[in-house]
Amino acid sequence: MTEIKNQAVVVTSRPSNIPQAENFEIQTHPIPALDANQILVKNQWLSVDPAMRGWLADANNYLSVPAGDVMRSLAVGTVIASKHTDFPEGTQVMGWFGWQTHAVVDASAVVQKITVADIPASLYLGVLGLNGITAATALDKIGQPQAGDTVVVSTAAGGVGSCVGQLAKMQGCRTVGITSSPEKMQQCKEEFGYDDVLSYREPDLATRIARACPDGINVYFDNTSGAISDAVMPQLALHARVVVCGTAAISSWDPVPSGPRVERILLTRRARMQGFILFDHMDTYPHYVHQLEEAIRQGKLHYREDISQGLETAPAAIAELYSSQNTGKRLIQLHD
Amino acid sequence: MTEIKNQAVVVTSRPSNIPQAENFEIQTHPIPALDANQILVKNQWLSVDPAMRGWLADANNYLSVPAGDVMRSLAVGTVIASKHTDFPEGTQVMGWFGWQTHAVVDASAVVQKITVADIPASLYLGVLGLNGITAATALDKIGQPQAGDTVVVSTAAGGVGSCVGQLAKMQGCRTVGITSSPEKMQQCKEEFGYDDVLSYREPDLATRIARACPDGINVYFDNTSGAISDAVMPQLALHARVVVCGTAAISSWDPVPSGPRVERILLTRRARMQGFILFDHMDTYPHYVHQLEEAIRQGKLHYREDISQGLETAPAAIAELYSSQNTGKRLIQLHD
Repeated sequence: MTEIKNQAVVVTSRPSNIPQAENFEIQTHPIPALDANQILVKNQWLSVDPAMRGWLADANNYLSVPAGDVMRSLAVGTVIASKHTDFPEGTQVMGWFGWQTHAVVDASAVVQKITVADIPASLYLGVLGLNGITAATALDKIGQPQAGDTVVVSTAAGGVGSCVGQLAKMQGCRTVGITSSPEKMQQCKEEFGYDDVLSYREPDLATRIARACPDGINVYFDNTSGAISDAVMPQLALHARVVVCGTAAISSWDPVPSGPRVERILLTRRARMQGFILFDHMDTYPHYVHQLEEAIRQGKLHYREDISQGLETAPAAIAELYSSQNTGKRLIQLHD
Repeated sequence: MTEIKNQAVVVTSRPSNIPQAENFEIQTHPIPALDANQILVKNQWLSVDPAMRGWLADANNYLSVPAGDVMRSLAVGTVIASKHTDFPEGTQVMGWFGWQTHAVVDASAVVQKITVADIPASLYLGVLGLNGITAATALDKIGQPQAGDTVVVSTAAGGVGSCVGQLAKMQGCRTVGITSSPEKMQQCKEEFGYDDVLSYREPDLATRIARACPDGINVYFDNTSGAISDAVMPQLALHARVVVCGTAAISSWDPVPSGPRVERILLTRRARMQGFILFDHMDTYPHYVHQLEEAIRQGKLHYREDISQGLETAPAAIAELYSSQNTGKRLIQLHD
């Protein structure tokens, strides 16, 4: 057969701030022979995630990607050669296959097989992937919403936030979303069913949050930190839970920016603030996938995808996430 | 019998900062007749607690004491008249009897009967009272120390902190105390058994904390907030627990002071920061009293008392707590 080449997006420099296209280079490599228990995956869908900024930043990164490596990412593809009996040729898989057309990986890189035929495979990178499972796991384990609770979500229209809002609503909570543009506000109301939606671009956010949450906030699902959180925190109710899931509003943590101290709020409200990273919870991943698949089938969970075509669109994709322009799960499609 | 009069420390004005002697006045009142189920307690020991500042502050107070009221406090005394069958004359009790010589209260004001004869009654206001039970409850329920953990305590020599340090040590943890003077540092090492003790008055606290905690900090028991916490937080280990128990280093929360944002630390370490107030946990109070009584009997739990004589020493006592001069549980003794 004609020798297949792999095209890969390689990290060439590590930005301290938001990664830009110039931090990457597309290189062409031969595909190595498979060792025992390895598989060759032909990627169809690549994921673009806010967490990638953390993987590339110098300070406080927890899953660093060094210069010279193929950019780490989740992807969906098909096994086209296999030396592992659990993954025969033709198996559709989602896993850590990187920003490249072909990946030779150990079976441990697979997060899950995709065996469901009635749901589009791309969803396993979005509402049924990192975003949705992060939302479901963090909301359930840290947010612990009860029916009647008021749940506030920053980046309410985003991949994680929109799922949090809908899941909280399904559990009988009152949901208040915070987002940016009029388009996203409309989407939050009409597609994601938030009871109230606030723009952080308009003045007096703190006053508007207080008005939108007259009984206080029981769960704050925080994807931003920064000025949005500063407006939310004073409205926490007794025994509130704050899920610290992302810090998209802070462009650099070096040096660490200052903000209003939260200790007195946590003390007087006996509130809890806790960081969440999905990789600590992979044991419960299948449980939450099944929960969300069921919600998708019942038409209760809405989502959007924002798809660009071809590997050459990958290097600039992280920066686009932070420009507030995208309106759905950011994906790169490599072939039909 | 000669008519007994009650002398009481009454709140005359509410300070926004640390309460001073001039915020109180000693008044003499007649003692009212007992209603059904009430008791008359002759106080022997009055408690002085850092929490009193919060009860008197205007902003964010959760147990406000209005001007005109007798200052709220825990006290130990003896029932000298009773219309409640559970508390006959002669019963020794600890409860919410206030800064006064005599209290007419409902039985619900009693926190516990003191029936143990081999332990001094004053301890039920200190190491067996709010301080000790706060330490034991918060460390157990929020700190959740495991053998081998590194536990850092701010106000390490204080009533709560010294108990936290000793309890953590009993559970096999490595304990690092942060305190002020050379006298308190010595006390921390010799009496409270800390493995390492740091002064927050010397320069480069952050560097010294990092050196004292080479494997990171698993539990930070925070009684201060402020610069001490700013030096501790960057050293949190994965899955660390921060008990927010007090904010003694912050003289005013109006306006809210700024400090380094903690979200990135909480996120990357998947750490938890949670406020604690003992009044949420009164159901488990007896459990922790028994635990600490046993440690006292076994000579494993050391404590200090800082006693002044007479009701007239009460009004200035809260301010003294915040001057770093006291070296033990602050008590007022009214009679032998």
